[in-house]
Amino acid sequence: MHKHGGDIYSHPAVVDFSANINYRGMPKEVERAAMEGIRQCGHYPDPSHTKLREAIAEREQVRPEQVICGNGAAELIFSLVLAKKPKRALIPAPTFYEYEQALHSVGCEIRRYYLKEEHMFGFCPDFLGEVTEEVDLVFLCNPNNPTGLSVQPEFLHQILKRCEGCDTLLVVDECFQDFLEEPVSMKPFLNESENLFLLRAFTKMYALAGLRLGYGLCGSPKLLWKIREHRQPWCVSAPAQTAGIAAARDVGFALESRREIGEERERLKEELIKSGFYVLDSKANYLFFKGPVNLYERCLEQGFLIRDCRNYEGLSPGWFRIAVRSPKENDALLEVLRQEGRMQWQKQL
Amino acid sequence: MHKHGGDIYSHPAVVDFSANINYRGMPKEVERAAMEGIRQCGHYPDPSHTKLREAIAEREQVRPEQVICGNGAAELIFSLVLAKKPKRALIPAPTFYEYEQALHSVGCEIRRYYLKEEHMFGFCPDFLGEVTEEVDLVFLCNPNNPTGLSVQPEFLHQILKRCEGCDTLLVVDECFQDFLEEPVSMKPFLNESENLFLLRAFTKMYALAGLRLGYGLCGSPKLLWKIREHRQPWCVSAPAQTAGIAAARDVGFALESRREIGEERERLKEELIKSGFYVLDSKANYLFFKGPVNLYERCLEQGFLIRDCRNYEGLSPGWFRIAVRSPKENDALLEVLRQEGRMQWQKQL
Repeated sequence: MHKHGGDIYSHPAVVDFSANINYRGMPKEVERAAMEGIRQCGHYPDPSHTKLREAIAEREQVRPEQVICGNGAAELIFSLVLAKKPKRALIPAPTFYEYEQALHSVGCEIRRYYLKEEHMFGFCPDFLGEVTEEVDLVFLCNPNNPTGLSVQPEFLHQILKRCEGCDTLLVVDECFQDFLEEPVSMKPFLNESENLFLLRAFTKMYALAGLRLGYGLCGSPKLLWKIREHRQPWCVSAPAQTAGIAAARDVGFALESRREIGEERERLKEELIKSGFYVLDSKANYLFFKGPVNLYERCLEQGFLIRDCRNYEGLSPGWFRIAVRSPKENDALLEVLRQEGRMQWQKQL
Repeated sequence: MHKHGGDIYSHPAVVDFSANINYRGMPKEVERAAMEGIRQCGHYPDPSHTKLREAIAEREQVRPEQVICGNGAAELIFSLVLAKKPKRALIPAPTFYEYEQALHSVGCEIRRYYLKEEHMFGFCPDFLGEVTEEVDLVFLCNPNNPTGLSVQPEFLHQILKRCEGCDTLLVVDECFQDFLEEPVSMKPFLNESENLFLLRAFTKMYALAGLRLGYGLCGSPKLLWKIREHRQPWCVSAPAQTAGIAAARDVGFALESRREIGEERERLKEELIKSGFYVLDSKANYLFFKGPVNLYERCLEQGFLIRDCRNYEGLSPGWFRIAVRSPKENDALLEVLRQEGRMQWQKQL
């Protein structure tokens, strides 16, 4: 099985910096709603997700019929791909592994656009040329995982126009958008394009990773209907629905978290740079950086689980991702990282 | 969207006889475990389901590596079909709708074996002839939904032998086995056949329908690996995993429920027959019977939701399914049904 972050089951008793979950945890009101959902489990969950879609629509300022919910955003990736059955798809590298896995599940040919270190892992204008009529689907993660870098709205708009010209579906994974101080969401284009599908989740911001809840926003009723036809009716559990409604209504928690995590991310970034690491300018709730190839093992020995990114397509050993956690936890990890950074320098001298 | 039982969302404030859930509800210990799972939701759930698979394996007397868990049995039906990508499949009619929906999702040709009223909706020996080398997959629901009738072990064994000869995968849905006083599970053949996949669930017996948890038992490591490759890693939520472990350990609750529900089913059956309905000899926690075509509406008017089976392939209007609920609730429904039965007779005279 492909290794992901968050494997606290093989490594209990560590501080987990490898999964990008809000360290503040589930808000009390959301937890209460989830518990209430447990009490409703004697019934099948609502297959239409009516109340949940209404709450999300209000939060996102879209129409309820433009919302589709899933058993985590990952489930929506698979259901979308199964419904669409693309023959050829374009994905960047490195990026979230599940796009590739889902595309393989329907035998899709995958074309990769390699984001290069020499370009700071950013998209270059030549990406547009990769979108052709032969390509049925494009996955973009914005901000990207693991880099934390965003594609800017003007360029995104060009990509969408290009996709429309080629009758290509553009899927933008915006699961980490809520952490950006300057959001670059494609939401404004939902009403004018049938070629756009946005993936979003409360999983990260509201610490619902274990409960499984993601959602998609899309302006094409036909595509949404097709996805529903290609999956079971009861994909979202009752507690995920009740918790999701509570989360959708709690905008304040997301704003506070964004500010707190943002400040902490910038501090952590500076400290890492001071310690001699090459750190990308992530604006999400995680940082992507270069370090000694054995850094994962060194951190684990000292009780910290970080994400070794070597199994991302397009990355060589020596790239790592860490979540931004509480100031105290970050300080503890920083102590280890400073030490490792110093040893690295001494070796090079 | 295809209409299923359990739609309490369109019909609030009814007594729901349309979904086959244990009326005793979730055992307290299982509910506590689910609540504990909510507290773990800040982490991604264990993608290997290690502890849950171990608990199920102990309960089922199989090996943990023969167990695969899913977001309800329905998710496993879709993942299995996606992994296997059958070209042609054989399913009985009437039966659970999700087999058909899942097969359509991969463009599979469906062949139907019609269970006929004149044969009391039972399988005849000619079913064996329908299993040919052209058929890649056979779905059997045992006991069948909506009829509640079982295929007997000797005939099942013949079907399995035939499937092995044709290199056909036999999927037996045993989700309602726990309610049978005389189980007819295919478990004894798991170790000797790679062509057998059993579907099971705690959903019905432990009233976990809203939490989503099903599992499969299979002796082919290759098939199990393939299913995992064709779905997201985090398909089973943390509370479903913790609740499932508690449910697997509580054998007593299942035995008590089976006895209680069994007694009540037989009483309900007799009363329905006395009232003039044609009732099949179901051994599950639900009854399948013939009544006036407008019985669904008549019951709904009086606050009872029953399952109108007219949208099952192979059934004409006038067939209904009701869950066995508590003695008091059954009595209340019986009062309505007796009245309707009487009116039916009066019309015929």
